[in-house]
Amino acid sequence: MRELWLIGIGAGNPDHLTGQGRRAILDADLILIPRKGEDKADLAELRRRLVASVRDDSALAVVEFDMPTRELDLPYLDAVERWHDAIAETWRAAVARSPKARSVALLVWGDPSLYDSALRIADRLAPKPPVRVFPGITALQALTAAHAIPLISVGGSVVVSTGRRLRDRGWPTGADALAVMLDGDCAFRTLPPDRFVIWWGAYLGMKNELLCAGALADVGDRIIDIRAKARAKHGWIMDTYLLRPSQARGNPVVE
Amino acid sequence: MRELWLIGIGAGNPDHLTGQGRRAILDADLILIPRKGEDKADLAELRRRLVASVRDDSALAVVEFDMPTRELDLPYLDAVERWHDAIAETWRAAVARSPKARSVALLVWGDPSLYDSALRIADRLAPKPPVRVFPGITALQALTAAHAIPLISVGGSVVVSTGRRLRDRGWPTGADALAVMLDGDCAFRTLPPDRFVIWWGAYLGMKNELLCAGALADVGDRIIDIRAKARAKHGWIMDTYLLRPSQARGNPVVE
Repeated sequence: MRELWLIGIGAGNPDHLTGQGRRAILDADLILIPRKGEDKADLAELRRRLVASVRDDSALAVVEFDMPTRELDLPYLDAVERWHDAIAETWRAAVARSPKARSVALLVWGDPSLYDSALRIADRLAPKPPVRVFPGITALQALTAAHAIPLISVGGSVVVSTGRRLRDRGWPTGADALAVMLDGDCAFRTLPPDRFVIWWGAYLGMKNELLCAGALADVGDRIIDIRAKARAKHGWIMDTYLLRPSQARGNPVVE
Repeated sequence: MRELWLIGIGAGNPDHLTGQGRRAILDADLILIPRKGEDKADLAELRRRLVASVRDDSALAVVEFDMPTRELDLPYLDAVERWHDAIAETWRAAVARSPKARSVALLVWGDPSLYDSALRIADRLAPKPPVRVFPGITALQALTAAHAIPLISVGGSVVVSTGRRLRDRGWPTGADALAVMLDGDCAFRTLPPDRFVIWWGAYLGMKNELLCAGALADVGDRIIDIRAKARAKHGWIMDTYLLRPSQARGNPVVE
């Protein structure tokens, strides 16, 4: 491959694709789409449909590959390292079957910079091809757009982190606001509920989008319940949320 | 006005506009474009061109208004409050001249959630119209895309903050990475240069994009110099940067 293109496709709404991302899908010689077996959260079908909505020859351009699975008996970061090695090998094998492809694209959920591994997996390719990144709308932007709230107060700051870190380390020292991604277990439960406000969303930008906001003491249990039911119904869920201390200056009004 | 639309238009590259944003520009009854007098950073011309590239009747759809100026002799947050009041009044006056407009759009640089005041100004309108937010690509995403780097290490976190806060409060406790926006004065100078790596960019996504990355001790002075010269040449500059401790696990390679 001559170039690897990482195309941010947004977090669920195909209309969040940028003009640049759309043209990259159109121009790529080969588009790799990962499959995760029976897991409904592999979103392969969404990617297939997105490509088909942009180009007529999508059946020719797309090559699907089976994603390796992460080893669960290793420490988290070690397991991720091994997993990335295995994915890089899978990319190599898929690209090798299309030797004429000069530009190979991966469609990255959200934006390639935010909790996505494609850039790190690309570092494992030898020789490493030039990488072009096409930014995409993240779930955090879809969340704040859906609630029509700012992420940051005037002159303030926000920490973007994971559910695991919130659970393990608590509220980040000095943070005005905390945006949490990759949280499979409602880590907001570990916070004192009377001191925080939450804006939560799942399936953001999609038809089945779910939103809930309010004082954590009022809506925390409701979010846990909504989330469990939606996950059972759809077989998967992707959600994200923003937390702010109740007393922070300039908090958006919960509507 | 029946609805206020805040349309994120990205940070300089018109191709970063999303499909949804494009359609909103096309469908809006009225598009308000702010002018800041002789200040070349008002970006009014970029907004005009963007609208003209999307719709043929842009001359009819667009209403321009002069932005009030911020009072410099008040404390920062108070000055911002008064300034937002004045801008809300300006919006009201501009909309009042087009009484039939049912959807009034503002084109927001980057994304309406990140260091933009439109959502807060909208709160000042009485009666407050329903607000729809269309997310856009931020300068941070343009920065990480241009450098082809992740914003966050595996399982890590990032603080998004301002130059003012970095200068006043130093490195945020426990942060793996710090993304700095709205920095008019190279606040990275206040950090010990031998302990950090920086990825910097100006005019991101635009033709005159400038990039520089490396150990802060090696490139800090160069960035200060490049920035001063570019600002003198163009009459304005918008830049942003990402900092990480030199020793952090999983730092991207500086190329």
